[in-house]
Amino acid sequence: MSFFPNVPQIKYEGRGSKNPFAYKHYNPKEVVFGKTMEEHLRISVAYWHTFNANGTDPFGVGTAVRSWDSLSPLDRSLARVEANFELLEKLGVPYYAFHDADIAPEGETLAETNKNIDVVVAKLKEYQQSTGKKLLWNTANLFTNPRYVHGASTSSNAEVFAYSAATIKKMLEVGKELGAENYVFWGGREGYESLLNTDMGLELDNLARMLHMAVDYAKEIGFGAQFLIEPKPKEPTKHQYDFDAATAINFLRKYGLKDYFKMNIEANHATLAGHTFEHELRVSRLEGALGSIDANQGDYLLGWDTDEFPTDLYSTTLAMYEILKNDGLGKGGVNFDAKVRRTSFEDEDLFYAHIAGIDSFAHGLKAAAKLIEEKVLDGVIEERYSSYREGVGAEIVAGKHDLKSLEQYVLTKQQPIKNRSNRLEQLRASVNEVITSV
Amino acid sequence: MSFFPNVPQIKYEGRGSKNPFAYKHYNPKEVVFGKTMEEHLRISVAYWHTFNANGTDPFGVGTAVRSWDSLSPLDRSLARVEANFELLEKLGVPYYAFHDADIAPEGETLAETNKNIDVVVAKLKEYQQSTGKKLLWNTANLFTNPRYVHGASTSSNAEVFAYSAATIKKMLEVGKELGAENYVFWGGREGYESLLNTDMGLELDNLARMLHMAVDYAKEIGFGAQFLIEPKPKEPTKHQYDFDAATAINFLRKYGLKDYFKMNIEANHATLAGHTFEHELRVSRLEGALGSIDANQGDYLLGWDTDEFPTDLYSTTLAMYEILKNDGLGKGGVNFDAKVRRTSFEDEDLFYAHIAGIDSFAHGLKAAAKLIEEKVLDGVIEERYSSYREGVGAEIVAGKHDLKSLEQYVLTKQQPIKNRSNRLEQLRASVNEVITSV
Amino acid sequence: MSFFPNVPQIKYEGRGSKNPFAYKHYNPKEVVFGKTMEEHLRISVAYWHTFNANGTDPFGVGTAVRSWDSLSPLDRSLARVEANFELLEKLGVPYYAFHDADIAPEGETLAETNKNIDVVVAKLKEYQQSTGKKLLWNTANLFTNPRYVHGASTSSNAEVFAYSAATIKKMLEVGKELGAENYVFWGGREGYESLLNTDMGLELDNLARMLHMAVDYAKEIGFGAQFLIEPKPKEPTKHQYDFDAATAINFLRKYGLKDYFKMNIEANHATLAGHTFEHELRVSRLEGALGSIDANQGDYLLGWDTDEFPTDLYSTTLAMYEILKNDGLGKGGVNFDAKVRRTSFEDEDLFYAHIAGIDSFAHGLKAAAKLIEEKVLDGVIEERYSSYREGVGAEIVAGKHDLKSLEQYVLTKQQPIKNRSNRLEQLRASVNEVITSV
Amino acid sequence: MSFFPNVPQIKYEGRGSKNPFAYKHYNPKEVVFGKTMEEHLRISVAYWHTFNANGTDPFGVGTAVRSWDSLSPLDRSLARVEANFELLEKLGVPYYAFHDADIAPEGETLAETNKNIDVVVAKLKEYQQSTGKKLLWNTANLFTNPRYVHGASTSSNAEVFAYSAATIKKMLEVGKELGAENYVFWGGREGYESLLNTDMGLELDNLARMLHMAVDYAKEIGFGAQFLIEPKPKEPTKHQYDFDAATAINFLRKYGLKDYFKMNIEANHATLAGHTFEHELRVSRLEGALGSIDANQGDYLLGWDTDEFPTDLYSTTLAMYEILKNDGLGKGGVNFDAKVRRTSFEDEDLFYAHIAGIDSFAHGLKAAAKLIEEKVLDGVIEERYSSYREGVGAEIVAGKHDLKSLEQYVLTKQQPIKNRSNRLEQLRASVNEVITSV
Ligand SMILES: [Co+2]
Ligand SMILES: [Co+2]
Ligand SMILES: [Co+2]
Ligand SMILES: [Co+2]
Ligand SMILES: [Co+2]
Ligand SMILES: [Co+2]
Ligand SMILES: [Co+2]
Ligand SMILES: [Co+2]
Repeated sequence: MSFFPNVPQIKYEGRGSKNPFAYKHYNPKEVVFGKTMEEHLRISVAYWHTFNANGTDPFGVGTAVRSWDSLSPLDRSLARVEANFELLEKLGVPYYAFHDADIAPEGETLAETNKNIDVVVAKLKEYQQSTGKKLLWNTANLFTNPRYVHGASTSSNAEVFAYSAATIKKMLEVGKELGAENYVFWGGREGYESLLNTDMGLELDNLARMLHMAVDYAKEIGFGAQFLIEPKPKEPTKHQYDFDAATAINFLRKYGLKDYFKMNIEANHATLAGHTFEHELRVSRLEGALGSIDANQGDYLLGWDTDEFPTDLYSTTLAMYEILKNDGLGKGGVNFDAKVRRTSFEDEDLFYAHIAGIDSFAHGLKAAAKLIEEKVLDGVIEERYSSYREGVGAEIVAGKHDLKSLEQYVLTKQQPIKNRSNRLEQLRASVNEVITSV
Repeated sequence: MSFFPNVPQIKYEGRGSKNPFAYKHYNPKEVVFGKTMEEHLRISVAYWHTFNANGTDPFGVGTAVRSWDSLSPLDRSLARVEANFELLEKLGVPYYAFHDADIAPEGETLAETNKNIDVVVAKLKEYQQSTGKKLLWNTANLFTNPRYVHGASTSSNAEVFAYSAATIKKMLEVGKELGAENYVFWGGREGYESLLNTDMGLELDNLARMLHMAVDYAKEIGFGAQFLIEPKPKEPTKHQYDFDAATAINFLRKYGLKDYFKMNIEANHATLAGHTFEHELRVSRLEGALGSIDANQGDYLLGWDTDEFPTDLYSTTLAMYEILKNDGLGKGGVNFDAKVRRTSFEDEDLFYAHIAGIDSFAHGLKAAAKLIEEKVLDGVIEERYSSYREGVGAEIVAGKHDLKSLEQYVLTKQQPIKNRSNRLEQLRASVNEVITSV
Repeated sequence: MSFFPNVPQIKYEGRGSKNPFAYKHYNPKEVVFGKTMEEHLRISVAYWHTFNANGTDPFGVGTAVRSWDSLSPLDRSLARVEANFELLEKLGVPYYAFHDADIAPEGETLAETNKNIDVVVAKLKEYQQSTGKKLLWNTANLFTNPRYVHGASTSSNAEVFAYSAATIKKMLEVGKELGAENYVFWGGREGYESLLNTDMGLELDNLARMLHMAVDYAKEIGFGAQFLIEPKPKEPTKHQYDFDAATAINFLRKYGLKDYFKMNIEANHATLAGHTFEHELRVSRLEGALGSIDANQGDYLLGWDTDEFPTDLYSTTLAMYEILKNDGLGKGGVNFDAKVRRTSFEDEDLFYAHIAGIDSFAHGLKAAAKLIEEKVLDGVIEERYSSYREGVGAEIVAGKHDLKSLEQYVLTKQQPIKNRSNRLEQLRASVNEVITSV
Repeated sequence: MSFFPNVPQIKYEGRGSKNPFAYKHYNPKEVVFGKTMEEHLRISVAYWHTFNANGTDPFGVGTAVRSWDSLSPLDRSLARVEANFELLEKLGVPYYAFHDADIAPEGETLAETNKNIDVVVAKLKEYQQSTGKKLLWNTANLFTNPRYVHGASTSSNAEVFAYSAATIKKMLEVGKELGAENYVFWGGREGYESLLNTDMGLELDNLARMLHMAVDYAKEIGFGAQFLIEPKPKEPTKHQYDFDAATAINFLRKYGLKDYFKMNIEANHATLAGHTFEHELRVSRLEGALGSIDANQGDYLLGWDTDEFPTDLYSTTLAMYEILKNDGLGKGGVNFDAKVRRTSFEDEDLFYAHIAGIDSFAHGLKAAAKLIEEKVLDGVIEERYSSYREGVGAEIVAGKHDLKSLEQYVLTKQQPIKNRSNRLEQLRASVNEVITSV
């Protein structure tokens, strides 16, 4: 049985194709910059947006009608498994990602919930084996249920901390069972609504306690996934503790966790924090902490997480540039944490939207590769910083100077300081030519 | 004598040229969508950013060193005239635009200032005649001098209102003398710093009084330029009265001025107001008030007017789309109200930056033309709104219904309402294909 | 039967009271600035936030458990009526406000929906009569149901326009039946998600068509309520047509509707538009269009409508200042379009939150009255603009000048222009003293 | 000779005084919460805003006319010294703070500049001794001169790094000479304009190299000041490396500098970074890194650093709350990094503005002390987190649990989880009562 009977297999037809069910840029086996596109991008579908979301927003109920809506909870969960693998097959992409709450209905008790999860996990495993599709990452949803009203690991209620711990334990086991390559921690309600009533010190300590427990338990059960923190500055809370990459990395350093975690950087979270996507990727890369990405885009004029499918080629190009400079994402991938617009409520939109996003990343990959191959940016950078590869600059970098020797240098130097133009406008024009020429 | 001896004539060399002193897209005589590029774009250089600005910012002094810097005030002004026409010639663009304060030094008295202006205007006129270059618009700078500390037309000091009136009078005469095709009113300090001490009613009335006087005087002297309001939401004031196009048009309507003014829409002002550039253009177009544009771009993550040279092809494409839908800009044009970055402080950057901006608009023009020719957007729109061209929709548009008849219609209708997907993700992917294919 | 058995009658106990169920500032019969507080404030409870909302947010389900939750839809609606009047009685406030969808369950058809509405309206009327409580305003919810996915009056689907018309008709009748003093139009989805696929001209024309039909029908049935537009810049749509007061008023002017509508200004909508609350009130007041307010507050660092109960005394003071300067709100009132935080999920919070909001407005009222009585602001303003009450300033205001006469005035004047300091810092300190002294 | 002959000694006259030249709240010797107000606040005047700034903004020249304007550069610098101590005396406050560029004119060479500095420093020292006034902190201005166009420690030009080092060396010596209690590093241009042309890794390494050199040199010369980093997210650069407290602290940790630096938190920088002032203070406090504050306020609706004198009592109260919880600022103080509005251009405004700011902080101090003494916030917090002081919560905090034991706890627990309301609205009302009652 098919859930998307009107949707054919999506194939690469290249630029100029007018077939809406075809890729114009994503050609999985095409080699770019030494690897296939598939190897570079490691594309993943987000279960929650694709199979659970229905277009609800704060001012309206869902608009999407899916064929599995009418089923009973557990049957609906099982149907979604089939729909997931059909969609992965038709899109021709290798990975998916989920929260516990996405795949199985919550029971009355933890035991019941876990039983539901086991039923669905068995089916997921069976489908993984038969299709070869893989789990990029899984995670625990510690924000939807009312019990998390005051947070999970950072709840003011210790009972909630305990429940969160039990849930994370289960999901680590599920990740191991399904061979998840990563495990994500997004602190949905780990933050505060008001400092007036918040013991921020205790909450941060507790957050660290939980992460240490998770590290220990993964080690204990031999779950070798890469652990990832996903920063976000706000929403749903007024202020989330993992505000951005620098804040999250500072937290990890403070609590002795830096070696065990990398970042899962989401584009829309970056912009909500006042950064570009590429900034967050650069910060993470320089910290040796670029783990994976949640591919989407926000609207700079809107102040909430719109999770749009990414189509801005400037953003996908500069993201892929950072990823190429990082020698790829390792165990991570490009997970489309993106939802179809509420007005794109038909089943076909799930495909059109993924095609748009995947093609935009494939386009960005080709453009980024060309930027590097033609040294469009690197050439400028080499030239700009050349003074640090000779003379006093080289000595500074080599640690041969202190304030006194540099004062001496300045006092005895003959020529006045001469700076050179950055030529940023010209560089931006060059980037345009690259992006529109691949 | 040349002010830019190292800069050759900028010619069109097309895509693939690596010559930094060449256009890759702007080919003045190339016909696109029925007119030459030159006729479509009517490109103008902003005198202030190009010949007066030097890279000063709130935390640093100027970085640019121009050859005319060492001259005495009036000689410097005269040298800038020559530099202006040399730049226009080398760029191969037809227009320029200025404030009074850009072209001549202010004197001790109004009479002295006007005398200085006359000297420079004579030289500008002579150069216009010999080169064929033209004045897109002129305006009065009513914000830099300390006298305007509390505003100009909206100053709390009636003496300042009077001085502003005299200055506008002079600049209308200058506009007439130089054949300016437009005259711009940007209310630099026409707004408030705090409502606590502001009589907003009186200030708005006074602003309207001044505009009426200007309309009357232009009529009196036979100055036929199109009058333009340039909206901006804030900066330097906390709140400017011409916040955005809708606000400015409301003001014009309220005070009986709507027939005499159109909008000069600046991209960066639009985004500071929480709108896209294309939104402001669309609003103006639908009001029959799209007069001219100040071409630049802001940074969505920065809260001040960065006036960058425009290189975002999404923005230039959608701007040109609105302009083509408007049947062009009439007397208006594409004025580069953009400044080289403080770090792009060499003379050559003035050219590189204009080339980047002009090419981006030429690229946008070609992409917009293709969007229209291939009905990429119009096809979707025709389909989306088709229900208003038949049945009850056509009747509604024709004014044949009221609430009662529509209730009757709903109560007797058989089928439930069926909406269709907007397919926005797919449409965005199509737009990408167009922009990267011209 | 009581829905809030633990909540006593809320009485005024004044400053210093530690009783959480008492007003510290709101003393209904206390005369301030010539009227009782009750007459000034005309306080209204928002049905939707108080009786329908349950703390759902985009990342979590409801947290509030209300005693009526377990009832069947129509019974739940009827129970809420009782709860509403109990809350109004206990708070000692005179008004409430609702959307159709708040008071009755939607049926399968319009006819069925209207029948449900009639049942509840009968009960509301009965309770109004027995308690003396009144309806400040009602409105139609044209955004929650999936049929409004593309808008209501501005839907791309004419069937939806028709359905919206029928719904508005019903709600005008309901308003008449219940003696509503106002009727509100908030265009929840009257805007666009993307200009790429939007015929903005047609949509605005249709919006005007609908408002004209509503004006006509109200006249026809003798419904004398004040019509109100509630501007909001965005959310749920990317861009709402009634962006702010100036935009909405421009629309009304363009379409010949200005005489029939005033503004319902919401504080949080103002700040989302980049304005202060008091700015939007001032703009409306100067246009003779200040009709009513939705009392709440946003968080300047969050980009969505948080609808918090208002407790910022700067905001309530300056809002009340504008209202006093407007000679009050006429038929309008202070409607608490505010919701308890998701973390304030207990029944008692509905009271604590209203007490906090009402006291903040009462405090603001007293502070605003003192500002006026002591001429703290007016004294400054009189002084600042004194030049327009004599000499050339008075002549300008009297229309006796043109550009030529003003140039003449400047050229012959002896003294240089002298401005005076605004002393804004001192004024702000004075405002602090007033706010903290009442 | 007096620079402010019209300004009397500012004395405490208390609430109700209408004397604009009197404090209504700041009573230096009054004991609050165990210390005098003077000891709590350690108030400092910012030299640059008070004696150098003149009201220039990006659209206008200076408006302030000071009596020292007409002097030659070095005489002007010496006159400002006298004006500074007169103002400190008249305000009755103990500290001031400066950059090198504030106190002395820059020479043609470093040697000449240093000579100028020496002349002024000698006079400053003399005045310090005769008046008892002290230097809260000094710093080097590494952003105004064109040589810093690409940054200072992070310049792409190694010559600029060297020059910066020499300048910092001099200012450490000046700090020692004048007994500065702190030394501040604000990285005015330490950031980037575009990632396209930036080697962020090298720049951050170089920034760390410079800070290590400064630490070493201070040790060498026995300069015992507290070193402070002042975070700011942007402006003048697009992105500053010390974005906020968490980012700066992460940088310090990464480069082994955490032990040598604390934070100088500026209110307006906090809000530009998307945080409240109190958030940045809390983060710093929990890191043991709250060193000093730059007291001012921004405008949430404006996107640039307005550096307004602080008058928002919510902000000053919550700031003082964090400071009291930190057991004070140690060597740090409350430095008014605030400028009079461009429209407050008269000499008297320097006093009115400082009075407004100082009174607002004194008011905030009294309110914060009352919040603590009455346990308004602490009582709520104790109650909220009580579950961590007993049972499973206490065990978690004591490190006695892991994921397995907590799962076991959840599986065997009998009662469902019960959360309690946060009562945030009620708490905010209580805070209002405290702020308006002191
Ligand atoms: Co994500
Ligand atoms: Co997101
Ligand atoms: Co402009
Ligand atoms: Co601009
Ligand atoms: Co509202
Ligand atoms: Co709202
Ligand atoms: Co500062
Ligand atoms: Co600042």
